[in-house]
Amino acid sequence: MSNTHLNLGVCYYPEHWPRDRWEGYAAKMKALGLRYVRIAEFAWSRMEPEEGVYTWEWLDEAIDVLHRAGLEVVLCTPTATPPAWLVRSYPEILAHDEHGRVREFGSRRHYDFASQTYRAHSRRITRELASRYGQHPAVVGWQTDNEFGCHGTTRSYGPASRAAFPHWLQQKYGSLEALNQAWGNVFWSQEYTAWDQILPPNLTVTEPNPSHVLDYARFASDMLAEFQEEQIAILRELSPGRWVTHNFMIFFGDFDHYRASEALDFVTWDNYPTGMLEFFSDWVDEQTKLRFARTGHPDLISFNHDLYRGLKQGRSSAAASANGNSPARQSGFWVMEQQCGQVNWAPYNPLPAAGAVQLWTTQAWAHGADTVSYFRWRAATMAQEVMHSGLLRHDETEDRGFHEVKALDRSGMPNGEVRAPVALLHDYESLWIFDQQRHNAGLSYWTQTLTYYCALRSLGIDVDIVHPDADLSAYRVIVAPALTLMPEARLQRLEAAAHGARLVFGPRTAYRTESGRAFENGQFGSFKHLFGGRLLQFDSLRPGLTVGVGEHRVTTWAESFEPREGQSLHSYGDGPLEGQCAVLRHGNVTTVGAHSATLVREVLREVLREAGLSPQDLPEGVRISRRAGVSAWLNFNSEPITVAGRELAPVSFTLEAEQVMA
Amino acid sequence: MSNTHLNLGVCYYPEHWPRDRWEGYAAKMKALGLRYVRIAEFAWSRMEPEEGVYTWEWLDEAIDVLHRAGLEVVLCTPTATPPAWLVRSYPEILAHDEHGRVREFGSRRHYDFASQTYRAHSRRITRELASRYGQHPAVVGWQTDNEFGCHGTTRSYGPASRAAFPHWLQQKYGSLEALNQAWGNVFWSQEYTAWDQILPPNLTVTEPNPSHVLDYARFASDMLAEFQEEQIAILRELSPGRWVTHNFMIFFGDFDHYRASEALDFVTWDNYPTGMLEFFSDWVDEQTKLRFARTGHPDLISFNHDLYRGLKQGRSSAAASANGNSPARQSGFWVMEQQCGQVNWAPYNPLPAAGAVQLWTTQAWAHGADTVSYFRWRAATMAQEVMHSGLLRHDETEDRGFHEVKALDRSGMPNGEVRAPVALLHDYESLWIFDQQRHNAGLSYWTQTLTYYCALRSLGIDVDIVHPDADLSAYRVIVAPALTLMPEARLQRLEAAAHGARLVFGPRTAYRTESGRAFENGQFGSFKHLFGGRLLQFDSLRPGLTVGVGEHRVTTWAESFEPREGQSLHSYGDGPLEGQCAVLRHGNVTTVGAHSATLVREVLREVLREAGLSPQDLPEGVRISRRAGVSAWLNFNSEPITVAGRELAPVSFTLEAEQVMA
Amino acid sequence: MSNTHLNLGVCYYPEHWPRDRWEGYAAKMKALGLRYVRIAEFAWSRMEPEEGVYTWEWLDEAIDVLHRAGLEVVLCTPTATPPAWLVRSYPEILAHDEHGRVREFGSRRHYDFASQTYRAHSRRITRELASRYGQHPAVVGWQTDNEFGCHGTTRSYGPASRAAFPHWLQQKYGSLEALNQAWGNVFWSQEYTAWDQILPPNLTVTEPNPSHVLDYARFASDMLAEFQEEQIAILRELSPGRWVTHNFMIFFGDFDHYRASEALDFVTWDNYPTGMLEFFSDWVDEQTKLRFARTGHPDLISFNHDLYRGLKQGRSSAAASANGNSPARQSGFWVMEQQCGQVNWAPYNPLPAAGAVQLWTTQAWAHGADTVSYFRWRAATMAQEVMHSGLLRHDETEDRGFHEVKALDRSGMPNGEVRAPVALLHDYESLWIFDQQRHNAGLSYWTQTLTYYCALRSLGIDVDIVHPDADLSAYRVIVAPALTLMPEARLQRLEAAAHGARLVFGPRTAYRTESGRAFENGQFGSFKHLFGGRLLQFDSLRPGLTVGVGEHRVTTWAESFEPREGQSLHSYGDGPLEGQCAVLRHGNVTTVGAHSATLVREVLREVLREAGLSPQDLPEGVRISRRAGVSAWLNFNSEPITVAGRELAPVSFTLEAEQVMA
Ligand SMILES: [Zn+2]
Ligand SMILES: [Zn+2]
Ligand SMILES: [Zn+2]
Repeated sequence: MSNTHLNLGVCYYPEHWPRDRWEGYAAKMKALGLRYVRIAEFAWSRMEPEEGVYTWEWLDEAIDVLHRAGLEVVLCTPTATPPAWLVRSYPEILAHDEHGRVREFGSRRHYDFASQTYRAHSRRITRELASRYGQHPAVVGWQTDNEFGCHGTTRSYGPASRAAFPHWLQQKYGSLEALNQAWGNVFWSQEYTAWDQILPPNLTVTEPNPSHVLDYARFASDMLAEFQEEQIAILRELSPGRWVTHNFMIFFGDFDHYRASEALDFVTWDNYPTGMLEFFSDWVDEQTKLRFARTGHPDLISFNHDLYRGLKQGRSSAAASANGNSPARQSGFWVMEQQCGQVNWAPYNPLPAAGAVQLWTTQAWAHGADTVSYFRWRAATMAQEVMHSGLLRHDETEDRGFHEVKALDRSGMPNGEVRAPVALLHDYESLWIFDQQRHNAGLSYWTQTLTYYCALRSLGIDVDIVHPDADLSAYRVIVAPALTLMPEARLQRLEAAAHGARLVFGPRTAYRTESGRAFENGQFGSFKHLFGGRLLQFDSLRPGLTVGVGEHRVTTWAESFEPREGQSLHSYGDGPLEGQCAVLRHGNVTTVGAHSATLVREVLREVLREAGLSPQDLPEGVRISRRAGVSAWLNFNSEPITVAGRELAPVSFTLEAEQVMA
Repeated sequence: MSNTHLNLGVCYYPEHWPRDRWEGYAAKMKALGLRYVRIAEFAWSRMEPEEGVYTWEWLDEAIDVLHRAGLEVVLCTPTATPPAWLVRSYPEILAHDEHGRVREFGSRRHYDFASQTYRAHSRRITRELASRYGQHPAVVGWQTDNEFGCHGTTRSYGPASRAAFPHWLQQKYGSLEALNQAWGNVFWSQEYTAWDQILPPNLTVTEPNPSHVLDYARFASDMLAEFQEEQIAILRELSPGRWVTHNFMIFFGDFDHYRASEALDFVTWDNYPTGMLEFFSDWVDEQTKLRFARTGHPDLISFNHDLYRGLKQGRSSAAASANGNSPARQSGFWVMEQQCGQVNWAPYNPLPAAGAVQLWTTQAWAHGADTVSYFRWRAATMAQEVMHSGLLRHDETEDRGFHEVKALDRSGMPNGEVRAPVALLHDYESLWIFDQQRHNAGLSYWTQTLTYYCALRSLGIDVDIVHPDADLSAYRVIVAPALTLMPEARLQRLEAAAHGARLVFGPRTAYRTESGRAFENGQFGSFKHLFGGRLLQFDSLRPGLTVGVGEHRVTTWAESFEPREGQSLHSYGDGPLEGQCAVLRHGNVTTVGAHSATLVREVLREVLREAGLSPQDLPEGVRISRRAGVSAWLNFNSEPITVAGRELAPVSFTLEAEQVMA
Repeated sequence: MSNTHLNLGVCYYPEHWPRDRWEGYAAKMKALGLRYVRIAEFAWSRMEPEEGVYTWEWLDEAIDVLHRAGLEVVLCTPTATPPAWLVRSYPEILAHDEHGRVREFGSRRHYDFASQTYRAHSRRITRELASRYGQHPAVVGWQTDNEFGCHGTTRSYGPASRAAFPHWLQQKYGSLEALNQAWGNVFWSQEYTAWDQILPPNLTVTEPNPSHVLDYARFASDMLAEFQEEQIAILRELSPGRWVTHNFMIFFGDFDHYRASEALDFVTWDNYPTGMLEFFSDWVDEQTKLRFARTGHPDLISFNHDLYRGLKQGRSSAAASANGNSPARQSGFWVMEQQCGQVNWAPYNPLPAAGAVQLWTTQAWAHGADTVSYFRWRAATMAQEVMHSGLLRHDETEDRGFHEVKALDRSGMPNGEVRAPVALLHDYESLWIFDQQRHNAGLSYWTQTLTYYCALRSLGIDVDIVHPDADLSAYRVIVAPALTLMPEARLQRLEAAAHGARLVFGPRTAYRTESGRAFENGQFGSFKHLFGGRLLQFDSLRPGLTVGVGEHRVTTWAESFEPREGQSLHSYGDGPLEGQCAVLRHGNVTTVGAHSATLVREVLREVLREAGLSPQDLPEGVRISRRAGVSAWLNFNSEPITVAGRELAPVSFTLEAEQVMA
């Protein structure tokens, strides 16, 4: 298997195992067809057992053993786990949670991104590590830290962040007048008269000002990005010719991943389909969780593939170019950690179905992954992950996943481009402000966004998920499910895009200004012309309460529009909004006000057809993805399915030469 | 429309809007038929941007603009929102929650009523404000602060309250011996030997002593009342001829509203029917929440009307007279904030049904409101209330509520007296001790109280809600659903009332002494003669467990009595209490031990008939109220209903000349 | 009634009642047939109202009154409730919860077992009390403190425990290298380089190291045991010839009860069947809670009887002998607090069914209780327990329980031996590590253990619950449902036991080493020969997800084995483990990997038959227990049941001469 097809890798912890096992493990990895081995992301206490004392000998040997076996090493900065001596000497590096409690040593990610003290240690260990291994022939690339934001660690409310936040605000706003105006602080006498009066937005008597929360999210996101950029600068200096990446995590929304990936060469993410469904998808109903308990949900997984594939397109063509990256649509992401057996961190951790590891690997490839790296080599016999699986069991026997990897035929999986005709727009700032004031406990930014994504996937359409400020010129249809925060410049670009493409917007679109206020002139702000009307009402529906739009039942959210230049495609059939417009159309722009999976699917099917695409209705759990001329048919059901003349076995895939779309 | 009929008003925040809008808004308010405009309750940061520096110019103009338009102004003390500079200079004013965490600046109500520092600032800003506007011709009255107790702010567990509580106790009890005896501190060695050993009852290992909790509730309630009385004294001095009120909130139970309203001229409350149902009625079942999602529940709303209408009758005729108020039954309350569109603070915030704003306004009038003031003029475009509606939308267009207000015909709504034949007795001390030891997670003081109230309303009966120590001489039937705390003097007065009226008591009546202990001689204490028997057992029924009384199923609570002088009207048909008395009757006094809505209704129907009243069985969601010779028929259902020959449209009302009751 | 049959007692608080009631109460107790009266466990503030000032006069009189009436006194050390003066003078004795909050004075159990300051006070008050009453003729025995561990008080995270924990670790491990190895601290760089870097395992960013948690549980358990042993040593010295016991509580698992009972003469426990079902059995489904709401569940109650009966068999014959106790199987426990009416501390507190107090008393006797002591004499009229029942009501009338006690015929209840043929093995260390990493939110150590216990009871089999290191030579069948932590020495003893007895193991057996790691060579460690195979997989089943084993449906947990020397008795019929072994048999050892009540019952029935026992299928809610030649048939159902020719009335029992088992 060459570089031209899907590569495989594994996450490995040599420090966990006796040295007499290392040679055998390396040989076994190689024999399994693995190319990359990621190591050392949690090994700080073995690199530097006391301050300034470095013990590299074990890591020298670990890397050499892998090198001799012909494996390539992905080395990590170990900053996700500062050792005990560091924490006890510099306790000010610890984060605090929103209840004001210190987040203690004893697991991982126990630091505040805003801590200048910790930043200095982070730079120091990165420099030492990169000095020693930056030009080692086995080391082909770097991973910074590990899973930024995991366990809610993006935002700290402790002393380091408290001290840094007012400075960040001062830089952003210049004057308190500007800040008070942007946040609307005249409301409830929240006006500040000195910068140091401003604290993080926790422990308030009732809900804090959403603009305050929004800026705190931006601040914390920036601190994270700065923290990483300091490491990257050192790696670039000391490890020329190697790439730098980070392993992002499933649906994490606390920081701006576009900003955090700007300085990376490419991104990776960690794909745990069963854990994702049980633990990171609290908006998914129990019925669906049960149905896909052993495979994960195909659309939740592929959403993350599509999301992380599109991350490096950045927030604008300009930004991407400035970083020396091509603004063209890129594939080239990895799955850095791929589940290959049960996980241990969800409330329920079922075994994957037979075939699931092959299905997940193929799906990752089909969505653009160049490498899939399994987590982990051998199941941990100690500490927090004793119940987690690996390719090898505790007793070193080959686990179920090992056999699936071994049997996987990658010859039909070339690492070519994914060319999706549809863009789905995604923006972390909209997520933050949307979820800060949901107005309906059953709704969230992800719920609304996934409703549109799943509809597109159920219609057999490939989707790029991109930032709304990215270059959208190549897309025939652009879908923006939940862009509630809408700067004017962004709307102008979308208006331009509407000349060449069809646009579909979801509810709450363009409701908020850049600082999180509502537009003084109401929803769509000054862009009512683009949408062809204005907002009339929004209706937050309690469980059991629905309204109708034609044959569709609308749950959770219903907003209505007054068509001006536009026309009403669908209107409400009952309830307080009876007779009012539910789907507004103006030229190439369609705006859906009602939350209804079936209505969304109907609207999208029609728009896709108009755009010359060929939507096809796929059965639940069956999906198709196309890459480099190959179509992958994926069946996540535990039953065989016949679709478009194909017989798909349970939990399986079929690769076919792609048929050119009409 | 004159003063003789229902008046309308609006809550308005001139500081939120550009000055060039003010004139137009005032004219539009006047044209809508509004009379009163409430302003400035959150505007401290604009009145005093730094300590001792007052900036009145904007408020001068705001009031003048309203005055010139012929509107009358209700001005507020702005103490619900101390500004940032004040909080940072005097952090000791902040409250602490029951977990020991400080309740920070960044929303509202961030102060401890017991803080002497904050009290001084409260008096100072009140004095400044009243000096400037106390005799302004537009200013007709004052509102103190805003929604005391909102967000659980009555009780603080921080330094200010911790310091004040022992002093309050010392004043009440004189000696530690008396306190230890009153609280029963010999239990679990809780006896105190120095006043400063006594802390607030939070953070205890397991549940605290209920007597400790009861006195802490009284203490906090007193602190709140004192805080307000300090303001009122200044307003009386500097603003002669103006009335003073406060806007109380839905079902808030943390302080004694009778005590807090003693020094007011009349009371107002804030009526949010949909938010009330979703957020402040956790004892209401999901089915009912769904049914009345767009109108609120008629009895929950009217309970608050009847409660607040009766507040100024006070705790005794004596007390009322001492304040120079007539002891006679008073109407004369206001709805200070009336929902006129969706709210933003419940888990679900549905749009009101078409007609709901008119229905709510009419219901308020029918229950005795002289003025209904809508919240708020224009929807906020900033900060915490961006998702809340107003009469105008964000974009200044007229929202649905505006049109309903405009179309409302108030000519049939004279501001006369409400004369209810039945009194329902309500007491905050009973609420505190009842809910501190519920003995059944499904039961509460409000649940039990509302069970009786709803039964009376479903029988078409007008009800006054009054304090048990009020003058009860005018009532033919007196219903006391949950008076569990029963001082002897109170029982003596009730015994006297039973000579002229019929009394109905609910479970747990007269179970507790004034300090929250149980009577040494058991339930009813020394008043077994009045009730005609004594308590045998109480049975706390888990969900699904029921016992029968005739055809009625009893849930949650069943207590049984041994009749002595009295007789058993109904007895238990199964369960551990089989054959024992469930409803005890002695002369004019009927005591119901079983929690069963249908049994309560049957018992009440019979008692009302005996008392010469004419109960009529109303359909669910249909209610009748009478005021000043007019009967208002109200239909809260979304379907038309035919009742007693009338056809009531969905979500509508009909006014008729009252027929004199038999 | 003599000592040879079941004795009765009562819990009594003379300090709660006026002295003029004492004589009458004593006479009434005596007349009721009570022998023992337990007093003073919460009376410290009356013994020592200020530091060093002792007031014994009241207690002198209280004891004398009981003595004169011919009653025997169980006296308690009052350390469960240090008085206010002590707490305020020595606030360092207070515990802290896992959130870092101090656990305040104001209820009970407000102390940290590791506090040397509190230990000194504990010894002092014990010495004073024992000096005065240790040889009083009425005092026949002592209870230490009260309900150790209640309200989650075993583990403190405050200064006293924080200071003591590193010392305890240093004593255990000697070197940090040993500790780092035992805990696997190389994982996530958790390695310590100084003892004082180690804190309690709370407030960590995500889950702490399970080995860290395990040792913290051991540490806290040791602190508790040491605390008690200090008291016992003083009592032995000053009160010769009296026994010492402690009243343990239902299902408490936070400390090692075997260790805590080593120095006691016998153990007692507090039996609250309805509260147990509602509050301490969160793994029981709602249907079962409803069915047995008024009687408690027979197996949950008897599990505790069997557990506490077996406690003094200790962790090894050696240990028992060292304490001067016979290693032979002992009965001789008491129920120190027996519910005799409603409790007040569960979410729902239903009245016991008629007959329940007699049924519970009889069941206690049948499982080996020599004495049943009712809680409490008269219902408290004050403080936290106002809603709790007693034998007398608040008003001193005789409550329902009083009448049942009075009517109970104990002549058929000799205090002989319970000789169970089956041992069920139980170990607190396995509980701690099992529940720390459940891997399935629906599973716990108790759930798994009770599944086997209930199956045995439903087959009419008497069961001893004993420590796995106890002498097992007398048992024909040994059942180990959840021994996940398995030191090698223990496995060796079990291997030896398998020569003479049949062994049945549940899932997760021998998964963990003594320090909580997984065995490097997988499940069963080096003992695969004993079990006849090795672990293949474990599958954590979400709610609704099941797999089949024959006709049985497996929920929650399924693990599979590779038979080596053993054979597969049952295999999975579907799911990822299809065709793999679910029940493994090797010689006398059967290991069940699947969680299925019906499969467990089938397997046990067959093993019991092989062992020559005669399992009989009992209806739900009907149980049989045998003691001293008498069989007690117990019906916990509210309907009459016919079983094996007997007609059992609802909530009743029948005593018969035991038929010798085949
Ligand atoms: Zn990971
Ligand atoms: Zn309000
Ligand atoms: Zn107890």
